[in-house]
Amino acid sequence: MAIWLDTAADDFETAFTALLSMKREVSKDVGDTVDAIIADIRANGDTALAAYSARFDDVDFSDPATPMKVGTEEIEAAIAAVDPKVIDALRLAEERIRKHHARQLPPDDSYEDEIGVTLGHRWTAVEAVGLYVPGGTASYPSSVLMNAVPAKVAGVERVVMVVPAMKGKINPAVLAAAKIAGITEIYRIGGAQAVAALAYGTETIAPVSKIVGPGNAYVAAAKRAVFGTVGIDMIAGPSEVLVIADGDNNPDWIAADLLAQAEHDTAAQSILITTDKALGEAVEKAVERQLKTLPRGEIAGASWRDYGAIISVLDLDTALSLANRVAPEHLELAVDDPEALIPKVRNAGAIFAGHYTPEAIGDYVGGSNHVLPTARSARFSSGLGVLDFMKRTSILRLGPEQLNRLAPSAIELAECEGLGAHARSVAIRLNRKE
Amino acid sequence: MAIWLDTAADDFETAFTALLSMKREVSKDVGDTVDAIIADIRANGDTALAAYSARFDDVDFSDPATPMKVGTEEIEAAIAAVDPKVIDALRLAEERIRKHHARQLPPDDSYEDEIGVTLGHRWTAVEAVGLYVPGGTASYPSSVLMNAVPAKVAGVERVVMVVPAMKGKINPAVLAAAKIAGITEIYRIGGAQAVAALAYGTETIAPVSKIVGPGNAYVAAAKRAVFGTVGIDMIAGPSEVLVIADGDNNPDWIAADLLAQAEHDTAAQSILITTDKALGEAVEKAVERQLKTLPRGEIAGASWRDYGAIISVLDLDTALSLANRVAPEHLELAVDDPEALIPKVRNAGAIFAGHYTPEAIGDYVGGSNHVLPTARSARFSSGLGVLDFMKRTSILRLGPEQLNRLAPSAIELAECEGLGAHARSVAIRLNRKE
Repeated sequence: MAIWLDTAADDFETAFTALLSMKREVSKDVGDTVDAIIADIRANGDTALAAYSARFDDVDFSDPATPMKVGTEEIEAAIAAVDPKVIDALRLAEERIRKHHARQLPPDDSYEDEIGVTLGHRWTAVEAVGLYVPGGTASYPSSVLMNAVPAKVAGVERVVMVVPAMKGKINPAVLAAAKIAGITEIYRIGGAQAVAALAYGTETIAPVSKIVGPGNAYVAAAKRAVFGTVGIDMIAGPSEVLVIADGDNNPDWIAADLLAQAEHDTAAQSILITTDKALGEAVEKAVERQLKTLPRGEIAGASWRDYGAIISVLDLDTALSLANRVAPEHLELAVDDPEALIPKVRNAGAIFAGHYTPEAIGDYVGGSNHVLPTARSARFSSGLGVLDFMKRTSILRLGPEQLNRLAPSAIELAECEGLGAHARSVAIRLNRKE
Repeated sequence: MAIWLDTAADDFETAFTALLSMKREVSKDVGDTVDAIIADIRANGDTALAAYSARFDDVDFSDPATPMKVGTEEIEAAIAAVDPKVIDALRLAEERIRKHHARQLPPDDSYEDEIGVTLGHRWTAVEAVGLYVPGGTASYPSSVLMNAVPAKVAGVERVVMVVPAMKGKINPAVLAAAKIAGITEIYRIGGAQAVAALAYGTETIAPVSKIVGPGNAYVAAAKRAVFGTVGIDMIAGPSEVLVIADGDNNPDWIAADLLAQAEHDTAAQSILITTDKALGEAVEKAVERQLKTLPRGEIAGASWRDYGAIISVLDLDTALSLANRVAPEHLELAVDDPEALIPKVRNAGAIFAGHYTPEAIGDYVGGSNHVLPTARSARFSSGLGVLDFMKRTSILRLGPEQLNRLAPSAIELAECEGLGAHARSVAIRLNRKE
């Protein structure tokens, strides 16, 4: 049973606000542990890294079968061990992601304004990026592609992957995805210790400038702690989908989409907003039916029971206005004319338009990125893209005439701010160098 | 006396690495205090806000002369109280910043790929942004423009300014700059309590989605703590300049530029890299001379003594390679042909090109933004711009043919990742709805 809300009900606003402020994630307080691990890695480098890996991952780097750095042979062996159909699918995904992201490469700018000042900017790639890949069941080859390909497209020279390897083992599909994405530097490490090693470097691992990729509470806390020393991407929270559906929909399809989100995590959230209450009821029945035959039915069922919601509205405009308040990671527009609704979407990580675009296509082979802002952060942030691996240097150039023209105002403001040396650095140039 | 380094010296690499890793900022551990303040604001709203403001800023919001929200009359009175020359200079600055930043508005994209999938993205503005303005001597009207104008250009509907007001007083030039930038919602609050109020809202203040602007250790810690609930800009550190100069320079000009940076803060850093050791020596003498007549000579002198550096190199290529390792906030290219060097700059917040572009011009009226990445973060981040106030929503649309084409790969990958509901949400649509 999901939560039912109806905009026609008197208590709707209260109920909807409660839905918005629902806390789905319990953030473990691991700050002290993480700080200690980071300090240890900074002080003791590889030695500390090996000790933590032995303790948390039960892996011995002195064993030639499981060295810290994953060798070429191990990567080749992984490719050979993965079903060729999966390899083909990964290749197709990589190609589609690469082609799509190539369009995000930003243009440089340079122009002269009306008084002859040259202004502009140049974009350059971050030189070295670390990609954290979780171990265990959340070790997704698709996420390797989604994080690595935009970095490669941006022109990042060094993309370093870290992945914790319980008893030394790494999911071969993850290694295959890394190889397909062009990653050659891979370390068998994880947790806060891997984040610290990437940020500060060790004898074996040269430091990077930015760290991306999802992880558990320790990884998230470590990323927050090293932020500033290196750049980080967003802190990922549990996934969510919001489906807007009119009456003309197959309830089984919508149910399948809600469950595709719910199966990620018991803290995932699936919301349906519909103009047709009968469809909502049919979807709810279909969800219960499909749950019975779902391999991850227990997880999906818990998510749906605790956080699933069906909201009945009078019209699509109301649906969109509620969706904008939710600011969902994934927004499905299950209507015949989604293009009419798209301009009204203000806050969403990604839109999946029409009846034939289940969100799962975007997870794998659509070409767009599946790393998207969760927990309402689409109000202020974007999905991962090429810009996350580049930075802009602004450029300003004045000649003597332009300096003469702008100097009085600059000096006025510098003096108003009490910054005499600022004023002098401008004034001193009014006596020409020549 | 600044530090002298010479690339020809045997110990250069050691000395340069030490310069790079010099810690200029002592980060006060204020986390617990800040957490308590945030919790109090969330629980008690305006009441807590008034109490902290009484305690830290000695201001009484119940006094009709100093209400929490700054009234229109107070803003008008501020404009009247500021020197008209300053007002004119602020207007010129605002116009130049606005025109320049308008070029940063990003284009939307929509295209059909070779198999008929529609992909694209739309950019939308963040709906509400909070701008933190420090009180006291660091209360700079120019920074109000640099933070607010890009937000306005992006299309942010609600820009809220907060500024701590010791005994109720706000720098009139700051209010004038706010008015010129089009800010109408201003609160007389500061510190961690103001950040918490912006992030979570109170009875008087509606919450925002993103908070920008510099502040002290408490403000920085509060921004770090609310990150995720709202977006934040970078955590600003002490300012720095790196000047690359060939022999053909007036030492007094270079000295003035080094001191303009040094006067900001005893933790600021000014570095000169020159191909002409004699110029370096002349600049050092000029710095000592100019320090004597500088209003903020004590601050600038301490910064220069503790962190100033002059590096002698054999050629400009070496200078650039060192500059890229420093990744300075401000990079001045004091050479005759700066355009030849610009393509070689990899890591810098902003470039000031040629002999007539002192960095201070960029602080005020150049048009480019003066909020730039400090503490080597130009390796992975950019100066403030319009993109910081916008977010990208990706769009994907498949029809039945495209779904049929991509479904097998998506299903293959979903099954490889153990996500059966993902696979089903794709497979179920292969039986057409009609």
